[in-house]
Amino acid sequence: MGRIVQKFGGTSVADIAHIRNAAGLVQAERERGNQVAVVVSAMAGVTNQLVGYCSEAAALYDAREYDSVVASGEQVTAGLMAMALQEAGVPARSWLGPQIPIRTNDVHGKARIVGIDSVELERRMDTGEVPVVAGFQGVSPTGRITTLGRGGSDTSAVALAAALKAERCDIYTDVDGVYTCDPRIVRGARKLHKITYEEMLEMASQGAKVLQTRSVEIAMNHRVRLQVLSSFDDGPGTLVVDEDEIVEQQVVSGIAYSRDEAKITLVKVPDKPGVAAAIFGPLSDAGVNVDMIVQNISEDGKSTDLTFTVSKAELKQAVRVLEGINGEIRFGQLRPDPNVVKISVIGVGMRSHAGVALRMFTALAENGINIQVISTSEIKISVLVDEKYTELAVRALHTAYGLDAT
Amino acid sequence: MGRIVQKFGGTSVADIAHIRNAAGLVQAERERGNQVAVVVSAMAGVTNQLVGYCSEAAALYDAREYDSVVASGEQVTAGLMAMALQEAGVPARSWLGPQIPIRTNDVHGKARIVGIDSVELERRMDTGEVPVVAGFQGVSPTGRITTLGRGGSDTSAVALAAALKAERCDIYTDVDGVYTCDPRIVRGARKLHKITYEEMLEMASQGAKVLQTRSVEIAMNHRVRLQVLSSFDDGPGTLVVDEDEIVEQQVVSGIAYSRDEAKITLVKVPDKPGVAAAIFGPLSDAGVNVDMIVQNISEDGKSTDLTFTVSKAELKQAVRVLEGINGEIRFGQLRPDPNVVKISVIGVGMRSHAGVALRMFTALAENGINIQVISTSEIKISVLVDEKYTELAVRALHTAYGLDAT
Repeated sequence: MGRIVQKFGGTSVADIAHIRNAAGLVQAERERGNQVAVVVSAMAGVTNQLVGYCSEAAALYDAREYDSVVASGEQVTAGLMAMALQEAGVPARSWLGPQIPIRTNDVHGKARIVGIDSVELERRMDTGEVPVVAGFQGVSPTGRITTLGRGGSDTSAVALAAALKAERCDIYTDVDGVYTCDPRIVRGARKLHKITYEEMLEMASQGAKVLQTRSVEIAMNHRVRLQVLSSFDDGPGTLVVDEDEIVEQQVVSGIAYSRDEAKITLVKVPDKPGVAAAIFGPLSDAGVNVDMIVQNISEDGKSTDLTFTVSKAELKQAVRVLEGINGEIRFGQLRPDPNVVKISVIGVGMRSHAGVALRMFTALAENGINIQVISTSEIKISVLVDEKYTELAVRALHTAYGLDAT
Repeated sequence: MGRIVQKFGGTSVADIAHIRNAAGLVQAERERGNQVAVVVSAMAGVTNQLVGYCSEAAALYDAREYDSVVASGEQVTAGLMAMALQEAGVPARSWLGPQIPIRTNDVHGKARIVGIDSVELERRMDTGEVPVVAGFQGVSPTGRITTLGRGGSDTSAVALAAALKAERCDIYTDVDGVYTCDPRIVRGARKLHKITYEEMLEMASQGAKVLQTRSVEIAMNHRVRLQVLSSFDDGPGTLVVDEDEIVEQQVVSGIAYSRDEAKITLVKVPDKPGVAAAIFGPLSDAGVNVDMIVQNISEDGKSTDLTFTVSKAELKQAVRVLEGINGEIRFGQLRPDPNVVKISVIGVGMRSHAGVALRMFTALAENGINIQVISTSEIKISVLVDEKYTELAVRALHTAYGLDAT
């Protein structure tokens, strides 16, 4: 007998019929002899509605009040799920972040979990009770409700699984697993049976949007076996596991893309020590995250061209910051470009295989796609290309790495 | 400088525009030099929606889970109101029942407040901060969220006013005060400037539905001056105060009616000791509240006819209970009748005035209205009549006691 954490996302608890369906999945897991803890998101659409109220109430709203308002969505689902379980004959009890407590830091709106006191939950699970935990929320050191950022219920579930030393954490969603690529774009995309934490982390942050990045980090650090699966059809999903659980590792596991990128080029930046810090410091202070960075010597040899990417949503803010510091930096020109897409080839296998990058560049060249920026990590190669090539590039790479279903 | 508690009902916080309007009323009270604490209900319609979810999730839902689900409505409004106040330049912070805490007993769904720890709230009010308290909710001895029953936010507000030793508790609603009678029925109904706690208690429980009965009880016990007023138009409302604050007391202050009554007559009940207990005991055990009771000797002298009223919602349940015990009691016949209305004449002045009841009976007789049951208290005379006479009876009495506006 093991312990399983089951997490149900917004579409899996969209209304009472769906909640009842999810309760059936809990019951089934229990009948397989396992102890189950449940984590729930808000009903689909509810969080957006609550966030809308906040934006309407105040132009710059207080993050502490925002947290108290939006956390109510998960509170409702947790109570209803406990009722549905009881109705199905399963002893259940709902738990809010402050009740357990799930302790976080005090960074309201995107708090981090610092600890979960799971003793009482474990005691009750040992008696057969199913705790239904409101996801997305915790409690600050001063006793205020905190939330973990959008998608934070994944993180609640994984952190709870770690605290409970659960055998597995099942993330129920509206897709049935992680694919080699977005099936809406690549018809031959295949569901992966297993994927490593590292790959999933890249897939998630590259826009695959299946799991919150932070949840995968916690799973990796605490070696929590994750499963992504659908609450709407049977069958196994994708297991996110440690590398040594995967016997035959593919060189490339998947292709990800993100349209959420914008490119900024600073032309003729004076090439002197400290200039990068003078540019990226103020951006960081303004809360703008910079992703890919490349720097070339320009023709005159006295200045460089600096290109980097930010998220599309932060482009305006970034441009404003850069214009504000130009008196000091004195670059030649500022060229913002939102019409780009980042395409990534991901796979832990590329650590031990040469020629992976070459195959990518060749496939793109054969399709006449110009690469604007390249960035690499141990298990990933990302390129920035013109947004209009998104589908073409993704499909070409999916084929080039032999990922198409036969 | 005094302390004022302002409570806003569901229609006064129905959307963000209304919440902003309410925040303006808080600001105005503050500018008059008072410290203000705010209590809010759920946005209009929200509680009904949440209750609907619960009924859908489980036929017989767990009251503890119900409380956790429905309490979320006030949580949302409290956060939004705090934001709206901050936006208007008023320092504010939302507070949930368990955060203050508002301690209650553990009778989920209709908990009673046992204490409010207001020290921290008072400390913050002294610095100029406005606490925005989620109404309707508290925390049980075991740390679970409790709710105080429908309309419970009134009770939250009055109990908070008592704890804060507030000068006044203003209940903002969608009517501008307490009337001599329901203005939808009696065109000449007048707004009362002042009414005693005792009268208000009778008005509330007789169906005037302006304030939760329990809130008036607490106000009376702690001598909290209440004001019922509208958040939609200016001008004073109705003050609910101690009797000695009212200099010139009317004999009758108002006429109330309740269509929520059903009559049950047991014909030929054996007239022996203990029979009343044998009937009302099982009803009470089944949670059926009995209101008016009359008992007559029947013609044969060996049995009595027993008539009493229950709420319409509990009529079926009452009939079932009575049929179940007939083998034991052996009454002749059971006659249920839902087509009745209870009409009450209310006034503390009737304590010192004779002839008040006579005027009621005369007015009804002159209009050909037959009285089925009579019950009296120190400050109230209630009669049960055929429901079809509701408007006629109420208007006749309003005129008979000289309450019509001139």
